[in-house]
Amino acid sequence: MAEEVKVFRSLTSPFPLRVIWALRLKGVEFDIICEDLFNKSPLLLQYNPVEKKVPVLLHNGKAICESLVILEYIEETWKQTPLLPEDPYQKANARFWAKFSDEKVFHSIKWGVLLKEGKEQEEGILAALQNLRCLEEEIRGKKFFGGEAIGLADLALGWLAFYLNISEEVVGLKLVDQETFPSLVAWMREFASAPVVHGSWPDRDELAGKLVSIREASLGRETRN
Amino acid sequence: MAEEVKVFRSLTSPFPLRVIWALRLKGVEFDIICEDLFNKSPLLLQYNPVEKKVPVLLHNGKAICESLVILEYIEETWKQTPLLPEDPYQKANARFWAKFSDEKVFHSIKWGVLLKEGKEQEEGILAALQNLRCLEEEIRGKKFFGGEAIGLADLALGWLAFYLNISEEVVGLKLVDQETFPSLVAWMREFASAPVVHGSWPDRDELAGKLVSIREASLGRETRN
Repeated sequence: MAEEVKVFRSLTSPFPLRVIWALRLKGVEFDIICEDLFNKSPLLLQYNPVEKKVPVLLHNGKAICESLVILEYIEETWKQTPLLPEDPYQKANARFWAKFSDEKVFHSIKWGVLLKEGKEQEEGILAALQNLRCLEEEIRGKKFFGGEAIGLADLALGWLAFYLNISEEVVGLKLVDQETFPSLVAWMREFASAPVVHGSWPDRDELAGKLVSIREASLGRETRN
Repeated sequence: MAEEVKVFRSLTSPFPLRVIWALRLKGVEFDIICEDLFNKSPLLLQYNPVEKKVPVLLHNGKAICESLVILEYIEETWKQTPLLPEDPYQKANARFWAKFSDEKVFHSIKWGVLLKEGKEQEEGILAALQNLRCLEEEIRGKKFFGGEAIGLADLALGWLAFYLNISEEVVGLKLVDQETFPSLVAWMREFASAPVVHGSWPDRDELAGKLVSIREASLGRETRN
């Protein structure tokens, strides 16, 4: 491999996964550098001095930060297997749902459900369900958000296929079931079984333990594990 | 004008402004539809059913939502006067700072400073200053974030040149001064005097009154005006 392509990830963050999936889709070889976010390496701080977080894509000495920005960079740098359609309007649509993933769905599930309890969590659940219903409507009748093939919005939303269920377990409630969200459930299954996704998820027990710790700390309680 | 190009804005939201500036930079003619966000029009709800907010760009019957997504759409649809450089890495850099504008700078100033008081506001000020210092470092030695000409990051950050000072007045404190942020202050002045920006700002008193109302409501107090 003449090119240097490295992905800085952590054991539990969902955001580096979309970068890994995109590189796999494009058939780009890369190395993974696993960061401990409680003890960040000098390299991570050097490559992402503003945000100091993962993912970072290092390509021939240049560091690109912010997972959705990285996906656009990957799309422009390696043209094969496009992540985005040609048409500007359809492109905008894919970018809209990618943004919706992070700013609405992820935000409402993490900050409104996973890290809350009681009345605040009840409100968070309503917001999360509303966001998830938007996804259910958007994916209805389609195999992927990108149509017949995985696209940018699928990569951005892909974390749901693993993290949603574990988050539900950690808080002890079910947000998404087969009956109310049949299309979203089918998409999660389809996405999770895609070859590029295979073997990329974090260890399930380790992630669950981490989410419990984060939840307990956020609620001001001692960690149980 | 054969093409239908309409921008849905509100009187006070900063986000539609970047869309207006981008269209002006490209020399695209457009109409403005001004929305009352407390009494949204059926058209706005039809064109942005998921988020129900401005801006929306309506182009020949197609609605594009989310201001940064709209900027990318404008860039791809009208090629003249590019908002982004050719090079993928430089593109990623511009996109990074555009995202930083919304997720860090805007967020910390609105939610941490404008809508808070006391100890919470003190923490918000620290976060806002840290974000503003990142901008100061990035713009140092350059005329615009895009280099010699206004680019995507300038359009995304342009709200600062008007909203920062009014927000400071509303809360009665100064975040950015000439001495500590010389490059950022110079950039704000340069940006505000660009021809495409001229005449686009909201009415200053109306905006200040609106920010006071939002602040008081957020702090659970009666509105003073």
